[in-house]
Amino acid sequence: MPVATAEDRMLEIDTRPVVLDQYTVDETGRSGQRPRGLVYPTGVDDVVAVVEWAREHATPLIARGAGTSLEGHLLARGDELIVDLSQSNKILDVAAEDFTATVQPGVTRTQLNTAAAEYGLQFTVDPGADASLGGMAATNASGTTTVRYGGMRANVLVLQAVFADGTVTRLGRAVRKSSSGYDLKDLLIGSAGTLGLITELTVRLHPIPEWIHSLRISFPTVPDAVDTAVEMLGLALPVSRLELVDAPSMAAINAFRGTCYAEAPALFVDIESSSAAAVTANEGEIQRIAHAHNAIEVATARTHGDRYALWEDRHNLYFAVKASNPGRRFLITDTAVPYSRIAGAVDTATRLGHELGLNITVAGHIGDGNVHTIVPYNEDEYPGAQVFSDLVVRHALEVGGTATGEHGIGLTKKKYLREEHGSGVDLMVAVKRALDPLGLFNPGKVLDVEPD
Amino acid sequence: MPVATAEDRMLEIDTRPVVLDQYTVDETGRSGQRPRGLVYPTGVDDVVAVVEWAREHATPLIARGAGTSLEGHLLARGDELIVDLSQSNKILDVAAEDFTATVQPGVTRTQLNTAAAEYGLQFTVDPGADASLGGMAATNASGTTTVRYGGMRANVLVLQAVFADGTVTRLGRAVRKSSSGYDLKDLLIGSAGTLGLITELTVRLHPIPEWIHSLRISFPTVPDAVDTAVEMLGLALPVSRLELVDAPSMAAINAFRGTCYAEAPALFVDIESSSAAAVTANEGEIQRIAHAHNAIEVATARTHGDRYALWEDRHNLYFAVKASNPGRRFLITDTAVPYSRIAGAVDTATRLGHELGLNITVAGHIGDGNVHTIVPYNEDEYPGAQVFSDLVVRHALEVGGTATGEHGIGLTKKKYLREEHGSGVDLMVAVKRALDPLGLFNPGKVLDVEPD
Repeated sequence: MPVATAEDRMLEIDTRPVVLDQYTVDETGRSGQRPRGLVYPTGVDDVVAVVEWAREHATPLIARGAGTSLEGHLLARGDELIVDLSQSNKILDVAAEDFTATVQPGVTRTQLNTAAAEYGLQFTVDPGADASLGGMAATNASGTTTVRYGGMRANVLVLQAVFADGTVTRLGRAVRKSSSGYDLKDLLIGSAGTLGLITELTVRLHPIPEWIHSLRISFPTVPDAVDTAVEMLGLALPVSRLELVDAPSMAAINAFRGTCYAEAPALFVDIESSSAAAVTANEGEIQRIAHAHNAIEVATARTHGDRYALWEDRHNLYFAVKASNPGRRFLITDTAVPYSRIAGAVDTATRLGHELGLNITVAGHIGDGNVHTIVPYNEDEYPGAQVFSDLVVRHALEVGGTATGEHGIGLTKKKYLREEHGSGVDLMVAVKRALDPLGLFNPGKVLDVEPD
Repeated sequence: MPVATAEDRMLEIDTRPVVLDQYTVDETGRSGQRPRGLVYPTGVDDVVAVVEWAREHATPLIARGAGTSLEGHLLARGDELIVDLSQSNKILDVAAEDFTATVQPGVTRTQLNTAAAEYGLQFTVDPGADASLGGMAATNASGTTTVRYGGMRANVLVLQAVFADGTVTRLGRAVRKSSSGYDLKDLLIGSAGTLGLITELTVRLHPIPEWIHSLRISFPTVPDAVDTAVEMLGLALPVSRLELVDAPSMAAINAFRGTCYAEAPALFVDIESSSAAAVTANEGEIQRIAHAHNAIEVATARTHGDRYALWEDRHNLYFAVKASNPGRRFLITDTAVPYSRIAGAVDTATRLGHELGLNITVAGHIGDGNVHTIVPYNEDEYPGAQVFSDLVVRHALEVGGTATGEHGIGLTKKKYLREEHGSGVDLMVAVKRALDPLGLFNPGKVLDVEPD
């Protein structure tokens, strides 16, 4: 089943069941229906052709990058065409003098970072997974460095996208700021492919700092760790990573890595500076604050090798938790709350885990108030894991937080949208109907909207 | 002509011509028609009543804060009701532990800063004028500190607004990040009151840094100054203000303030740090970079008093230019361009000024690529000033920039919208129609859309 593209080449739609079946289960193990077909565009002309074909054939489209969504964004109802953009993966330009790069949506963040590093620059949004830039824009991804550099909205300057009528439009300008017209670029970011298909991005790059010190600091209690973190932020220390890991997580790390760290709540911190004197002064200040909040153990890494080793523990946390829960699957919560509610959110999750007999661990980007819990479950424990997740989200919403700090609403969190946004949901529906009147783009994700 | 509000009180609509005539001319001297009436809501219930009244009486609304718009946002066609929110000016909450504050839209930035300072916190968006927070959100204002802290989009977490059907909706959540639903908060920011009326804002506050050094550095040429600025950014120095002032501006400052600074292009810089050692190291690094780029004169201010005096020169620039052009009025351009195009933009403006016989000066927030020119004109020179402004904008658009970095499109820059956004304008029109189908909100501003 071919689609004619603007380049007079035919783009083949793959309809082989054995291929399509690989798209029925996502990274989390959730499953959907077998999609109608699969297509691999390599550029914007291909995508325009696909959108035109989709309109003619009344076939909705699900855009897909690296496939690392955790909330069911990529699962099909059965009638959709999967638009796999992993082959649309060229770095089109690195404009080092402007601190920007322009890429196709299938480019992954490590691919971009390799190219940017040649100029002493980096793309800072780090969601953990080696996600594609298009997918990261679609979910408004963020991660460990967001406390300093912001998430995708702060780091994408321009999006090129194909809209429902096949028009190719550039949203935003490649400048640091603009007050011209409505902010459609940020509307598309986080819209999970439900308003248009992203075909190109111009993103900000940041200089790789010359001086970074890393610290791992253990505390007797979670509130001590949180108070230390908030005090660092209150003193405007140039913290670029600020992660909380709870005691059970540290125990899992010890078991997995053969280390013997204090099995107590810990902060993992990066502090960046532009001179040796500044980074040393800043590190001293962090140590002072930590000790004032009863720090048990302070480990410092000042060289690239030591820093890499220190962060390897944090980056391996998921694998460590996996290893201590053999045979189980995992659910990850993703709430964000105001700073004053972080300790309460961790405490609530820990208490609920005990009550429901779940072996949960808590780790979060607490510089952003983003608290993740990892919930291992087997088949028997699945209902309990669902109850846990639901109570954690409802607690976050009650204290003014959000159901999702960085993973998105997707399919699985639609039930919280009204509670979080109230009548804002009606405005979202109005926008969806205005920009995608036929319901071509990722139907049933983020919002339930019937086409006109 | 009274409007009944939800509190059973009557809100009076002022229709006295002598009062309304004060609203026919804006801060720049541009004039519009006498509006139909004027109303002073003091809270969200009043605003709901006004929107309902407006719908019943088919009377569009122009929201107004401190009245400092430079692009005709507040001028009436003649049939509108002015919704003056200057009496809706309560600070509702300073949540110091969360680094946030919640305010009514008529609160000005200095009013908020006075309240925040009690907690060692500041609201960082500084557009120069003592604008209202609601107005600043409406134009997506930014200013001298944007290079470090971002503009309104980065600093507003939640907007409460009244929409066309009278519904009160909160957009966004008071957390550092969220991937929940469409980003309507950022859509409203910069929409100039054309989609709904802002009735409350929750904004980010930032710690007031303990150590700030300020520098004024003169250079033989604009490219030397720009190269110094970009190199500072490339080394990730914690610069919080980074302003370029051209030679004619420095001459105007000397004449106005009785100083004898080099009449050469200059950078005004703030560098912030969390320790004395760090700020000293960072200042030394800036001096080194400046000298490597041929700096003529470096003045450093390290105490609060000295810093205040150094920045007074920059803050008085507009008055200095006014004083050297007696009897003239002023037009201010507001383009932003990529870093690599800043020197070219300044050069183009200078050359065009000479060619058109205009006594222009250039000053800009060059850390954001935002280049302002001040164009003095008398009646004879007005056509030349218009040509100048038009050519400066077209040059910025040609090199990938924006027609407006921070002042907004308003009434005066609508003609550039299509050139800047292409088919994006059609999407903006679709969004406007979806959210304001009756054309109730600030008609004819930003976009020309006929109501359905």
